[in-house]
Amino acid sequence: MEPVRLGLVGIGKIARDQHFPAIAGNDRLNLVATASRHGRLDGVDGYHDIAEMVSATALDAVSLCTPPDGRYEQALIAIEAGVHVMLEKPPAVTLSHVEALVAAARKAGVSLFATWHSREAAGVAPARAWLADKRIDAVRIDWKEDIRRWHPGQEWILGPGGFGVFDPGINALSIATEILPRELFVESASMDVPEGRASPLAASILMRCGSAEVRAEFDFLQTGPQTWSIEVDTDAGTLRLTQGGSVIQLPGEAEQTAPDEEYARLYDRFADLVAERAIDVDLRPLRLVADAFLIADRRVTEAFAF
Amino acid sequence: MEPVRLGLVGIGKIARDQHFPAIAGNDRLNLVATASRHGRLDGVDGYHDIAEMVSATALDAVSLCTPPDGRYEQALIAIEAGVHVMLEKPPAVTLSHVEALVAAARKAGVSLFATWHSREAAGVAPARAWLADKRIDAVRIDWKEDIRRWHPGQEWILGPGGFGVFDPGINALSIATEILPRELFVESASMDVPEGRASPLAASILMRCGSAEVRAEFDFLQTGPQTWSIEVDTDAGTLRLTQGGSVIQLPGEAEQTAPDEEYARLYDRFADLVAERAIDVDLRPLRLVADAFLIADRRVTEAFAF
Repeated sequence: MEPVRLGLVGIGKIARDQHFPAIAGNDRLNLVATASRHGRLDGVDGYHDIAEMVSATALDAVSLCTPPDGRYEQALIAIEAGVHVMLEKPPAVTLSHVEALVAAARKAGVSLFATWHSREAAGVAPARAWLADKRIDAVRIDWKEDIRRWHPGQEWILGPGGFGVFDPGINALSIATEILPRELFVESASMDVPEGRASPLAASILMRCGSAEVRAEFDFLQTGPQTWSIEVDTDAGTLRLTQGGSVIQLPGEAEQTAPDEEYARLYDRFADLVAERAIDVDLRPLRLVADAFLIADRRVTEAFAF
Repeated sequence: MEPVRLGLVGIGKIARDQHFPAIAGNDRLNLVATASRHGRLDGVDGYHDIAEMVSATALDAVSLCTPPDGRYEQALIAIEAGVHVMLEKPPAVTLSHVEALVAAARKAGVSLFATWHSREAAGVAPARAWLADKRIDAVRIDWKEDIRRWHPGQEWILGPGGFGVFDPGINALSIATEILPRELFVESASMDVPEGRASPLAASILMRCGSAEVRAEFDFLQTGPQTWSIEVDTDAGTLRLTQGGSVIQLPGEAEQTAPDEEYARLYDRFADLVAERAIDVDLRPLRLVADAFLIADRRVTEAFAF
């Protein structure tokens, strides 16, 4: 089978750090073009935007790693040109936009892949397998990082549709929905929104999974050690996922880890989906975020400057 | 065919004013029991809650007109007992709860009907038919009512999950999604949330429908004349729906109206669905509300007392 002729849209830090190496390491994919207002990759045809790229180049598929706002319009251009689409997380800014992309992809007969890269962290698949037959008693999610360190100057992240601390927090929700054997529901949420901003810097969410309480604490002002951990108490002891899901510790066992292959796995899966013209869009992480925003109690906290 | 043996859950104002007369007027339905902590209906067996009612009575179907919080658990009890379910609007407090009810109903092979009573207003079906082949140029939605007049003392409506002015506003969104020939997307929203409350008293929402702008103004502090109107500018003139959809005016024509049959139509449709064991759950109105909450800019306004 000929390699998939792929275009990459949005040449920023995540494209250079993750997407480009993962594509280069996959012999089922051939990067033939990029579209970006600002960046280019050496040795690859560069276009100004996706419409120009799709009309000028023979492409089978595109991968979008632009910011979420605007991704719907870009994806629709590709889908309506009969081009398969892979989306960075979150797939769009609203649920309705994602649903519309699924409908458009079905109509056009192309693949659509809404990726959740944290689900490909090394500990996630073993955690899912181990939890499958356990009774879940309680879950604690702590996702606490320093916005100034990881998102310096990214004002949009605290603006409308930026999701604030849910931008990293949705990664935790993507893991939780993947590893827990029953559905999650938001029961209550409280959010700290700094004065003059639209999106929260901190959030506490009480969820339920069967009869178990799931408590998530998201914090964007964590200095010192950074925490991205999920602990699941079961009838067979406590499972711990740390470092964003890349390290797993089962009860009574040593920590296990493996090299980071998140984006390599995403692109391998995308090549499978393209071969099958299949759609893989799991809306649950974004739906939980929307549910939390829908029922949250908000507190206005002191103004924040990067 | 024998009439459907129906139980009614939640005996409050809406049950007495709308549900009971509509059921009594439908010979395909036979009201055999009610469940309510507070109310009963003369001549009908009354139970304390749905679990008691479902186990004590031979029922084919239940209709839930309790407040949205708690409706998920009630519906699940019925579905898992193999009983068909009809839900007042909104079907639940979060999207995830509604999706879980759909999955449970599919598994149990029972009907599930998420009703949107405003869609049954007299002008809605003619509006949908007239708009089907028109070019939509602009849409204005004004849904402005006095919370003190229509929801006296209902503190929960401004609490977490009460949706605030979106409790009536979702009726407008249920009509708009029904009559417009293309999907709606929320592009931006601003909300006024009174100090110490979780849900908004007013909201402005900018949506898009194809290339047309859809502007919605929701206000819960409208004294004097009350406004529930939708105006649609098209290539063939402006269509006006007023009085909550019960009055329609086509360009150059006189206003038309008809007797209120909203709940009679809902119960007739439910009897059809039960006969077919079919599911009718359109999540779009609730999804648009969640999308608006997700991307809204909020302003804290002066405290509100009923």
